[in-house]
Amino acid sequence: MKRIVIVGFGTAGLRAALSAKSQDPSVSVTVISEERYLTYSRCGLPFVIGGQIDSFEKLMVVSRNMLLRLGLDLMLGFRAVDVIGDTLYVEKVDSGEIKQIKFDSLIVATGSQSYLPPIRNLNLNNVFTLRSIDDCVKIINALGKVKHFVIVGAGAIGLECAEAFLRRGIKVHVVELMPKVLPNILDDDMASILQESIVKHNVTLKLNGRVNEVLGSNTVEGVVVNDEIIDCDAVLVSTGVRANVDFAKKIGLEIGSYAIKTNEFQETSKAGIYSAGDCVETRHLITSKPFTPYLGTVAYKQGNVAGVNAAGGSMKFHGTLGSMVLKVFDYEIGATGLNVEQAEKEGIKVIVGKTKWYTKAEYYPSHGDLTVKVIFNADNGRLIGGQIIGVSDVAQRVNLLSALISMKAIVDDVVNMETCYSPPVADIIEPVVRASEIALKKFRK
Amino acid sequence: MKRIVIVGFGTAGLRAALSAKSQDPSVSVTVISEERYLTYSRCGLPFVIGGQIDSFEKLMVVSRNMLLRLGLDLMLGFRAVDVIGDTLYVEKVDSGEIKQIKFDSLIVATGSQSYLPPIRNLNLNNVFTLRSIDDCVKIINALGKVKHFVIVGAGAIGLECAEAFLRRGIKVHVVELMPKVLPNILDDDMASILQESIVKHNVTLKLNGRVNEVLGSNTVEGVVVNDEIIDCDAVLVSTGVRANVDFAKKIGLEIGSYAIKTNEFQETSKAGIYSAGDCVETRHLITSKPFTPYLGTVAYKQGNVAGVNAAGGSMKFHGTLGSMVLKVFDYEIGATGLNVEQAEKEGIKVIVGKTKWYTKAEYYPSHGDLTVKVIFNADNGRLIGGQIIGVSDVAQRVNLLSALISMKAIVDDVVNMETCYSPPVADIIEPVVRASEIALKKFRK
Repeated sequence: MKRIVIVGFGTAGLRAALSAKSQDPSVSVTVISEERYLTYSRCGLPFVIGGQIDSFEKLMVVSRNMLLRLGLDLMLGFRAVDVIGDTLYVEKVDSGEIKQIKFDSLIVATGSQSYLPPIRNLNLNNVFTLRSIDDCVKIINALGKVKHFVIVGAGAIGLECAEAFLRRGIKVHVVELMPKVLPNILDDDMASILQESIVKHNVTLKLNGRVNEVLGSNTVEGVVVNDEIIDCDAVLVSTGVRANVDFAKKIGLEIGSYAIKTNEFQETSKAGIYSAGDCVETRHLITSKPFTPYLGTVAYKQGNVAGVNAAGGSMKFHGTLGSMVLKVFDYEIGATGLNVEQAEKEGIKVIVGKTKWYTKAEYYPSHGDLTVKVIFNADNGRLIGGQIIGVSDVAQRVNLLSALISMKAIVDDVVNMETCYSPPVADIIEPVVRASEIALKKFRK
Repeated sequence: MKRIVIVGFGTAGLRAALSAKSQDPSVSVTVISEERYLTYSRCGLPFVIGGQIDSFEKLMVVSRNMLLRLGLDLMLGFRAVDVIGDTLYVEKVDSGEIKQIKFDSLIVATGSQSYLPPIRNLNLNNVFTLRSIDDCVKIINALGKVKHFVIVGAGAIGLECAEAFLRRGIKVHVVELMPKVLPNILDDDMASILQESIVKHNVTLKLNGRVNEVLGSNTVEGVVVNDEIIDCDAVLVSTGVRANVDFAKKIGLEIGSYAIKTNEFQETSKAGIYSAGDCVETRHLITSKPFTPYLGTVAYKQGNVAGVNAAGGSMKFHGTLGSMVLKVFDYEIGATGLNVEQAEKEGIKVIVGKTKWYTKAEYYPSHGDLTVKVIFNADNGRLIGGQIIGVSDVAQRVNLLSALISMKAIVDDVVNMETCYSPPVADIIEPVVRASEIALKKFRK
């Protein structure tokens, strides 16, 4: 009987466990996790704060019963500390007690943790990060007394929390170091659409703002942004995450530019040791460069590949376009592939098409606006990226663009695409096609 | 100066006019139409009956001012009767007055008309069809006195009108000759999901029902379905449309299996005469057989091609997958390519994947159900069709499948597709991918 041991029980760890069992029901699977919860959706946490989701239990994607029925051996509250030969050493978080577990295949799915930038006094009370249920509980417990939150970082989590805090009646100030929101995702022109909407909802937005210091003696009393003081009584630091690679380093796995290196089978530099999820660096499908997208979708796919292969199968994960979507106030915002800024950094000459159009027929009462930007490689016509902001129907258009990129579509393919239409659900003119027609005209000039 | 004359001012005629002017602003464009209205969205008519759209004006997609500004010559209320040499003869519908118009290029966009099956007494009062604003006005004028509508035909228009009548407080009975609703579009299993929903809304649905006769002396009093009498005081006949080819025949254009034959440039058998829209038969992109999809989207694209080419450009329309979507009661229903029944008729062995999943994360409160069926060619793995029924987010998934078919995607391409995820807008598991994974397993057996 093959023994598979998985370190980490997030999206990648769970998926690896289920896929291993599904690939070969005879394998034994043991999962080690420092957290005491079963796998839950981290992406759902801001919506518990906002109140749209009314309990953490709803975020649990599997039940203990289901896991036991599948014959998984769960060791929650344990930390992996070392590997010697075919033995994993784990430590009980509470007591420090050490246990040994023999394995044939090991899957490292240690995930990532909140990145803390060099800001003075981050140790004060009411300075939060949001990554785990425990983080979320601390925030929710503080909400009753907090009147003014400063959010450091206008990435996805920062913006989702801005909406959540506002829903709880709290004044919100978002400070972003870069000159735009979602700086790793959107070009300036697309970011400005979202910025207008955020400001309209009475969130104060400070771009080009460097937070140097949190003020206060015991509890937060303000932050210093550039040379200005903003009074506040709580701070959320949402400046991204970093891969957890300490354990991987300890056991001698090769680390790449950002995170654990694996091949397409999700196998690390050591035979029989796989890795999946936020702790791994993958390949960007357009630039072929190392890339850590920190996306649940990628963790899910990599976990599947690692689980199947650890159980004797053969499956590959080829890389990612970083396709993502989020919802903030009035808009859904999505992107895939490269934006113009990223493409130019890679030395790719681009041709862009952009249009503001409607989510359904203009004459149908509940129609809303949708802006599509598509980006093509000027040399070969290939679609290399897209950004979409609209009141609805964004996610599936991101998937469409992502599929077109993967199928190596050129601008003519997108222009000739057949789309469907009915007044209550989609206009006869599809904005993705219209934006591409605009790009095509530039190609012909 | 090149003279372009367009017969018909529906979606294809209007698009042809605009595209001709855009291709070469120096051409003169004259448009002939029997209707006295400017181009309007026929697809919007059921929603005027239902009350979601409050006036016909909203359905007008261009204004007279805009058309005049573009320099189009409009001749509304005229019927094209013949072509001799380079002269088109038109007749004023009111007066019978004949006029002659010289042309260099002619575009025939005569559209389609409601098909009337052989049912006795269709000439009674309160027997309606729905194709034009005039048809729609007659229906709306009758609504106040009508208590029970029988709809003959459960295609898109029939079902949209079922909902519209019900919104107006009228009892509705839908009778369909075939054993399922949307018989040309859905397989039995997918149709049954929609049927359940329709019946839940208190529409009486009679499948396998042949209407032989309308009863009544002056006004409708009932219909005979099979051998049964259904009492009612109005009948809508929505049994599809047929291409208007009388004028084309008169002027000697070649007619194919169903409608006017053209090449990929939308040129008919006579040089310099183009045709576009419902009056044309096109090529099915999978079977390569003649096909009349009767879709606004296809008319729009063909009109564009005809207009560009008539004005001296060179553009092709390659054919269609018949991608369509509609909304009826709780569901959006969409399809593209072949269904299983159609594929088998073509002698294609299929492998099918199907899943019922969610429109967004299961734990997010407003999630709803979405069923995806994907159909692959068993011999070469190619995606050849799909059907989707869900509470929302159907249209863009139809576009995705349609794009994948056009890009010649095989089952592995769909399975490996990257999708985006955020709890309020899309689940981490994309139903199109999940359905394809189920198909892939069958391929491997």
